[in-house]
Amino acid sequence: MAKAADVYFRVDPWKIMEEGFDPAYSRVSESVFSLANEALGVRGCFDEGGSVDSLRGAYVNGVYDMERLNRSYRGIITETHFMIPAADWLMTEITLDGEKLDLGKVQFRDFRREMDMRRGTLERGFVWQTASGKELRLSFLRFMDRVHRERAYQRVVMEPLNFSGAVEIAAGLSFDVVHEGYKKCFWQDVRAEGEGSRFALQGSTTLSGQEVFAGAVLNISGDIQIAEKTAALRAVLPLEQGKILTVDKRVVILFDGDTGESLWQKGQAALTACGQISLDEALTAQEEYWAAYWRTSDVEIEAAEGQEAAVAAEQQGIRFCSFQLAQIYNGGSTRHNIGAKGLTGEAYNGHAFWDTEACCLPFYLFTNPRAARDLLLYRYNTLPQAIERAKMLDCEGACYPLATLNGDEACSLWQHANLQLQPSTAVAYGVWHYAHVTGDRDFLYTYGAEMLLQIARFLASRVEKGGQTGKYGFFGVMGPDEFHMMVNNNAYTNYMGMRTLLCAVQTLDDMRRDEPDAWAALMEKTALKADEITLWREIAENMYLPKDETGLIEQHEGYFNLPHTDINAIPVSQFPLYEHWSYDRIYRSDMVKQPDVLMMLYLYNSSFTEEEKRVNYAFYEPRTIHESSLSPAIHSILAAESGKMEEATRFFGFATRLDLDNYNRNTREGLHVTSIALAWVNIVYGFAGLRSDGEGLRFAPRLPERWKKLSFSILYQGRVILIRMEKEATGFRLLRGEPLQVQVYGKPCTINSEEVMIPASDANVSA
Amino acid sequence: MAKAADVYFRVDPWKIMEEGFDPAYSRVSESVFSLANEALGVRGCFDEGGSVDSLRGAYVNGVYDMERLNRSYRGIITETHFMIPAADWLMTEITLDGEKLDLGKVQFRDFRREMDMRRGTLERGFVWQTASGKELRLSFLRFMDRVHRERAYQRVVMEPLNFSGAVEIAAGLSFDVVHEGYKKCFWQDVRAEGEGSRFALQGSTTLSGQEVFAGAVLNISGDIQIAEKTAALRAVLPLEQGKILTVDKRVVILFDGDTGESLWQKGQAALTACGQISLDEALTAQEEYWAAYWRTSDVEIEAAEGQEAAVAAEQQGIRFCSFQLAQIYNGGSTRHNIGAKGLTGEAYNGHAFWDTEACCLPFYLFTNPRAARDLLLYRYNTLPQAIERAKMLDCEGACYPLATLNGDEACSLWQHANLQLQPSTAVAYGVWHYAHVTGDRDFLYTYGAEMLLQIARFLASRVEKGGQTGKYGFFGVMGPDEFHMMVNNNAYTNYMGMRTLLCAVQTLDDMRRDEPDAWAALMEKTALKADEITLWREIAENMYLPKDETGLIEQHEGYFNLPHTDINAIPVSQFPLYEHWSYDRIYRSDMVKQPDVLMMLYLYNSSFTEEEKRVNYAFYEPRTIHESSLSPAIHSILAAESGKMEEATRFFGFATRLDLDNYNRNTREGLHVTSIALAWVNIVYGFAGLRSDGEGLRFAPRLPERWKKLSFSILYQGRVILIRMEKEATGFRLLRGEPLQVQVYGKPCTINSEEVMIPASDANVSA
Repeated sequence: MAKAADVYFRVDPWKIMEEGFDPAYSRVSESVFSLANEALGVRGCFDEGGSVDSLRGAYVNGVYDMERLNRSYRGIITETHFMIPAADWLMTEITLDGEKLDLGKVQFRDFRREMDMRRGTLERGFVWQTASGKELRLSFLRFMDRVHRERAYQRVVMEPLNFSGAVEIAAGLSFDVVHEGYKKCFWQDVRAEGEGSRFALQGSTTLSGQEVFAGAVLNISGDIQIAEKTAALRAVLPLEQGKILTVDKRVVILFDGDTGESLWQKGQAALTACGQISLDEALTAQEEYWAAYWRTSDVEIEAAEGQEAAVAAEQQGIRFCSFQLAQIYNGGSTRHNIGAKGLTGEAYNGHAFWDTEACCLPFYLFTNPRAARDLLLYRYNTLPQAIERAKMLDCEGACYPLATLNGDEACSLWQHANLQLQPSTAVAYGVWHYAHVTGDRDFLYTYGAEMLLQIARFLASRVEKGGQTGKYGFFGVMGPDEFHMMVNNNAYTNYMGMRTLLCAVQTLDDMRRDEPDAWAALMEKTALKADEITLWREIAENMYLPKDETGLIEQHEGYFNLPHTDINAIPVSQFPLYEHWSYDRIYRSDMVKQPDVLMMLYLYNSSFTEEEKRVNYAFYEPRTIHESSLSPAIHSILAAESGKMEEATRFFGFATRLDLDNYNRNTREGLHVTSIALAWVNIVYGFAGLRSDGEGLRFAPRLPERWKKLSFSILYQGRVILIRMEKEATGFRLLRGEPLQVQVYGKPCTINSEEVMIPASDANVSA
Repeated sequence: MAKAADVYFRVDPWKIMEEGFDPAYSRVSESVFSLANEALGVRGCFDEGGSVDSLRGAYVNGVYDMERLNRSYRGIITETHFMIPAADWLMTEITLDGEKLDLGKVQFRDFRREMDMRRGTLERGFVWQTASGKELRLSFLRFMDRVHRERAYQRVVMEPLNFSGAVEIAAGLSFDVVHEGYKKCFWQDVRAEGEGSRFALQGSTTLSGQEVFAGAVLNISGDIQIAEKTAALRAVLPLEQGKILTVDKRVVILFDGDTGESLWQKGQAALTACGQISLDEALTAQEEYWAAYWRTSDVEIEAAEGQEAAVAAEQQGIRFCSFQLAQIYNGGSTRHNIGAKGLTGEAYNGHAFWDTEACCLPFYLFTNPRAARDLLLYRYNTLPQAIERAKMLDCEGACYPLATLNGDEACSLWQHANLQLQPSTAVAYGVWHYAHVTGDRDFLYTYGAEMLLQIARFLASRVEKGGQTGKYGFFGVMGPDEFHMMVNNNAYTNYMGMRTLLCAVQTLDDMRRDEPDAWAALMEKTALKADEITLWREIAENMYLPKDETGLIEQHEGYFNLPHTDINAIPVSQFPLYEHWSYDRIYRSDMVKQPDVLMMLYLYNSSFTEEEKRVNYAFYEPRTIHESSLSPAIHSILAAESGKMEEATRFFGFATRLDLDNYNRNTREGLHVTSIALAWVNIVYGFAGLRSDGEGLRFAPRLPERWKKLSFSILYQGRVILIRMEKEATGFRLLRGEPLQVQVYGKPCTINSEEVMIPASDANVSA
């Protein structure tokens, strides 16, 4: 499956730059130029709107509305929820000589847009050439506050190049925003007030009953004009040739679960506080924030000779990935998770999937463990809904949703929502992986154990015994490979189920020993009976997990007898298959959408032999079409482990620039946020060979040919470890914390403040 | 699964009688008292309407409207169609002393309703006791013309018992009718005109663009009042104590595909013609029609001693089944098929399923071969849509729809519409079975061969080779057992596919020999290549059809390893499972909804050994919960064949009175028309042991214990054969046509005009 890169943005180590404007590329650019501060997100759309093709979206994390669905069968959801666009705080109309600024219609030159990843800012500038012959240089700056997450800033700078006169500006806020898919505005009962240089709105959603406050304070005064769902400050401003005029808008978008007058009062107070800080002061704080971020989270790549251009693009790419991840989620909130598209578009409805635990968590575990913990607390907070969901499925315990914002299952495709058990096993894996890597027993016993217990209970109520084998297994499931629906004894599901049950048993055993009172309280809260634990152990010990003599694992019962599809014979024009093949046709061959057996070899890497990984990779990789953007990185990591560096590098190919180069042809819908998390994972697990699922940390650095150096640091149990890979050797150095013993190429190695160099030739010894 | 009979209607050999009215049973009665003449159908609802619980429905065969669906994935339908109620021609308002007749509100006595199956009429009578103390005896009669199928008749008879005075009547027609599921009226642009004793309306549907003309002519005059979508004749009529007043309404409901002024003119002409015949004359013709019908189609049962009451109920029941079948379809139209509920309710949307070929066809084959041919011509007429549907599924040839009125697939559940191949194989089976029984080569070569060819082509494009077995099979299918979705190598599907391919090959071979010109024309029309036929033969010869050494057939790959469900342990309160179990839970055990392996043993009965039938029956029957009303009859037939007469009789238990006694608790939605066809099949194939899928006809009569005698006649290749079963022997006699050699209990027997008696003891010799 050939993927082609667009070449559109200028390569630069720290910036994403667009020079000149291609209207056909408008939505892709909007996605790439998305900014967010975890609470608020906005696509890189034009402040002034206009007729340019655009998905105008400003989003507030956690804000959604709902749709009631026709009840069909029991266990299929009867209402769904989806992220909706919230207050548009960039709305700016500029009129000169009666000509309204609209880049789809007016003349302009020197267009340039640039996102600075060291400052978290987006700037856009151009010279507007009016029909009346005037030239006005315009520049727009925006950013969102990283500390006061309800705050956002917009600056409009105007410089008349060849005239003096007057410009009319309307700087507004609007809840009159339309969800693109539903083609309707979900906001109603919008209250609006304002005076002088300040105004505010408050809107409520239609069915979810959420309310959002939006307020703005400007550095200019004017008429406050209030229309339906919209308020704006209108002013006519004098322009003097060669002089710069600056309009600063400081915005508060407050969403904290409160409503009515109480929210209005809090919003007004927050707006007053925001107005006491100048935009320049806020910008300085922003720069400091990002500088600190990059000090611990940067990945630096140096090119091998002759590879400078390609590697410069990768350097920019991996920073873009880290930047976007930190924008979307950086911890501090346990009310939100990470949407598949973050806050960068309405595709996937803003929903979080099991991508969070399977793909994003490692990035946070080793760069921001607090954020990893918060992500898991989100799952703890939504445990009650998972318990309800299990009941709907005639099961016990907790079944985590396939797709959700608020913890309720939001996926209306029963074949995914009812058959995929991996959200639940992924949460269990995340709890275990987090506790295993961080050693955070407090989290494990206060929150994790309860989740593990309820998930184990769910699995035990869902598992059944094969009529012929007499072994336990999960029947009627869809494994990670979404091209095989409703299969029996999916190896991944059975294996993850077995591990989850054992993990729950072990955790409860440990807890009973370490924290008997807390353990007793948990037993009482959950009414867990001793024979449940006995059953979990029995199920785990008698789980159907066959392998053939070579170690090859059948993806599910009957997989080997499926008709063979030569995936290389499928014309590229037929991708994505979901759009070009009859729905049922996709499900009846040995073609694999994304790693399934290989996914478990990745997650529980240390539990499988090298030979098993080699054999299964060799079998499944040629049958996999990677129709999920999560697929290539997992294959790259396993290829690197097998020493297939060329393949590993090929699969890594577009990881860092998936969206920057629009590889999947759908970046216009938003960024592949959970996929780009895997760019970091691909580098650290793939090329540095980090393994975190066994005893302690293990490394097996293998540098791609085109790189000369790779360096990054990780946080690990209070330490900062700097890893510097070069062709001949890899250095490990402790920047903070106590010395640590790890394994490198299978041999013990102590990391301390003096750099220790492990020669690359050691790789061959163990291989 | 215990089924309980309601005891509501009085048992009578030829009538269905309700004495006294139970409002809670109103909808069940409406369904049971449905009348139809194939073109028009009407539920037994009260002419005067009122506040009584009712599904007021008058239907016109072939009239439907449509709904556009949200496009989800390719191959899933994007619009569906469904039967809608058409002109209500029974509308009658009666007012006495300002009191409006409404049996939900007024006082009344001596309520009685009766359907006479020898006349095809429904009559209802009662005495209305007004608040003012008056007593008015009322009776309502209705029937539909069997010859002029656009005609229907209503008579209202009034007799004042204790007063003279005036009654106000409004006799109307209305398109202001609401579809119960969609809760809306689909009729629009209704034209209305009228004068004196005659008026008419013409309406068109919203999306399907169909038009229906409705006109009425009465034996009284009055004011014609026209309101939106409605017209009525209003009159105040004098009543004289002890004298009878009769209001006759003769109605025309015309639907012939025509529209606009042209339809209006035709409708008016038809109404004039209708008005020239009196209601009494029409009634006489009706009685003659039904008398002729019963002469050839009756099944007579005589009770064993002490079984009189039960058998009288069965006698009534089997006549009710034959009566309803003849009402719904009796041949003459190739534009309609048989809806699962006929024209008796809106459930299943009026759609026809593969029930027609699998369940209903034998009844027509042996009582009305012309109707059987017309049913298959309906499939021929919709072949173009089946070809289009195959393309949507990325296949070739013709894929027949799971559910349809007009030939387009109307089932929006992809898991049924896309995965069930049995509509196509059932059509092929129907073509073969019809030609085989009737010897109608003209039909076979003119229509059947083309259907067989296109279905074979479809199957050849849908079949695939197992990766391990190297054998052909169908992957990703749902067999007749709808509790196992998306399985591989379903035995029924593979076997039926194999037989269909061989049948197509054989038919084309025969046709080439018998009708070379027609054959050449067909080859050209369908662009069939010789290597396609070669491939069909190869597929059929290499179809995956495993049996174990005992002859046991696995329902599909992996079925034997499914978790076992003890169906006897499921509480009755959990039925139907679709309403009480989580949707996915139904699909993951060895529980079977309806015959699957057994269905093929029934259809191709002569191709399996007695031992194979015994072994498979013994295995699958205890795993089957019969959640389809089609299930018990098939089991009864196979049980009888195995000599398990007690089981056969138990499964037959409610066959004849499925709806009369509301066994399935949902007769209120309409009659189980295709299921009641199986009552006849159950008797003739089960107890007379008729087999029509081998060489000639075979019989193996086995009379249930509680019957003393059973007699019925069948039509076969120009003959009428009377079969009279008694305990000791069965008599076969030719009433018309040439002598015939058949097999009885496996031995040859010649039937001629002298009755030949075969002793029942012969059964044991061959068994």
